[in-house]
Amino acid sequence: MAVYTDVTADELQAFLGDYDLGDLLSYKGIAEGVENSNFLLHTTGGHFILTLYEKRVAAGDLPFFIGLMEHLAARRLTCPQPVKTRAGTALGRLAGRPAAIVTFLDGMWVRRPTVGHCHALGGALAALHLAGLDFSMQRRNALSVDGWRPLFETARDRAGEVAPGLAETIETSLAALEADWPAELPHGVIHADLFPDNVFFLDTRVSGLIDFYFACTDTLAYDVAICLNAWCFEPDHAYNVTKGRALLDGYAAVRTLSAPERKAFPVLCRGAAMRFLLTRLVDWFAVPAGALVKPKDPIEYYRKLRFHQTIRGGRDYGIDALC
Amino acid sequence: MAVYTDVTADELQAFLGDYDLGDLLSYKGIAEGVENSNFLLHTTGGHFILTLYEKRVAAGDLPFFIGLMEHLAARRLTCPQPVKTRAGTALGRLAGRPAAIVTFLDGMWVRRPTVGHCHALGGALAALHLAGLDFSMQRRNALSVDGWRPLFETARDRAGEVAPGLAETIETSLAALEADWPAELPHGVIHADLFPDNVFFLDTRVSGLIDFYFACTDTLAYDVAICLNAWCFEPDHAYNVTKGRALLDGYAAVRTLSAPERKAFPVLCRGAAMRFLLTRLVDWFAVPAGALVKPKDPIEYYRKLRFHQTIRGGRDYGIDALC
Repeated sequence: MAVYTDVTADELQAFLGDYDLGDLLSYKGIAEGVENSNFLLHTTGGHFILTLYEKRVAAGDLPFFIGLMEHLAARRLTCPQPVKTRAGTALGRLAGRPAAIVTFLDGMWVRRPTVGHCHALGGALAALHLAGLDFSMQRRNALSVDGWRPLFETARDRAGEVAPGLAETIETSLAALEADWPAELPHGVIHADLFPDNVFFLDTRVSGLIDFYFACTDTLAYDVAICLNAWCFEPDHAYNVTKGRALLDGYAAVRTLSAPERKAFPVLCRGAAMRFLLTRLVDWFAVPAGALVKPKDPIEYYRKLRFHQTIRGGRDYGIDALC
Repeated sequence: MAVYTDVTADELQAFLGDYDLGDLLSYKGIAEGVENSNFLLHTTGGHFILTLYEKRVAAGDLPFFIGLMEHLAARRLTCPQPVKTRAGTALGRLAGRPAAIVTFLDGMWVRRPTVGHCHALGGALAALHLAGLDFSMQRRNALSVDGWRPLFETARDRAGEVAPGLAETIETSLAALEADWPAELPHGVIHADLFPDNVFFLDTRVSGLIDFYFACTDTLAYDVAICLNAWCFEPDHAYNVTKGRALLDGYAAVRTLSAPERKAFPVLCRGAAMRFLLTRLVDWFAVPAGALVKPKDPIEYYRKLRFHQTIRGGRDYGIDALC
């Protein structure tokens, strides 16, 4: 939650000169987005979000992200719609950074999702997957199964500082995931980071999906597993099977999960837990001691991983009822 | 620049139930305000700022700050106007904090003030001083001359870590300020923290003054000295006499500086530099090493203090031309 790059009014006014958005009335840095700097713009043309892409987002990936938002918005998925300059481009440069303006979406992210929110989220995720099926661009998921061992290697020696035996548990589980990871499931665009702070609601209706900067081409059901981890556990790390069923029901009402997807679901859930456990572990050691900005706790995902290892089959998630 | 306290949509909706602002459509934490948590609200009634007062603001002072904004807004000074509940109160409680909603002001703060901005700022400051003359509440300035020595005592032993000889320079200058501080100059409401990030402009017109949480009852010309320090030095710490004259001209066009105020101006400028040097020095030692949020550099105000010590009289600021 930060603004990494500041912008002067003169710079911003010059940048806006290429757009048909009217005169600049105000802009404020907003405390959202871990990777980029975001500003809420008010112009005589309305309200917009300005994003400056910081170095953690590869500039070469930006056409995929911008193109994806345009594609999804054209299919009436409620996501930020990139605003184009008069010359027809949606990606510019401001304050030495790649920059884009997107439409402002109303709605609030829910700090404590209910069963109803989980059901609505499932439906929105499935709608995203369907809308993305005919998107022509591809982006490899660098944080899928092939990317986990290199991450682990950078943190292995210190993993025991976070929890005794953590390195050994990861090693065993990672080897099993590498052996069992399903390759033939339906692929397409996945969001890959659809945590509650990336989903806006008005009442219990999803009013917007944001932050497509981990989106990539990967197994659709893996995205469902990421959401189950992010939405269906309680603050004490206990799995809430009612929320899990609601998410899966909501998804299945829009897109049917095939028998192979349902069968592979437990391993996909373990993989989703492993992915966030590993990135949080690496971030944990990357932040200097005493820093005011605390990295997210890897333990949360370690406990989710261990929960998934106790699962006997998809029935424990409530997925068998979907057949 | 941070949001210290998060708010859930449910809490915020319940809080808004006491107001006539319509339905909540969105709220975003904004990266402004060092002391408090601020959110930009969008409701069916419009755009507003929600502030949660963190512990650095004394709850007992809030009626003064809120009352002052109401007083100034009623006199058409463009400052945030507190929004009242149906019961007529402007100060509530949310997420365990005192909280208030104020109107949203358009405008941008200028990162690099020009001579024109300094002139406009001077006029706005004088208008604030005139509008505050009949405000009935009082608040003592805890950061005026009586408060400086206690601050210095907490940092004296380590001051040499920031610059060699700093403790000795402060000691000498502080003793002189305590001896020479003018007591009989015109008093009233001062903003006391009118740095560029607290002044919004649309083009070169001041569109709003914000952040009244250091406002107090003190010497009016001292507020001018604070602004001269904050607005009229270049990034290399050199005083820009053209900007100084513009600020003083702008001020004098709205409120005349009396002969005693002009005579005392150099000592007021030294005092204003001392006040920010000391609070920055204390903050410098209060923040743990390695923290990502860096405190503001005390050296900037040390150099300003030393500049003011070279001044032979008000003429060097351009103030004599105002007679």
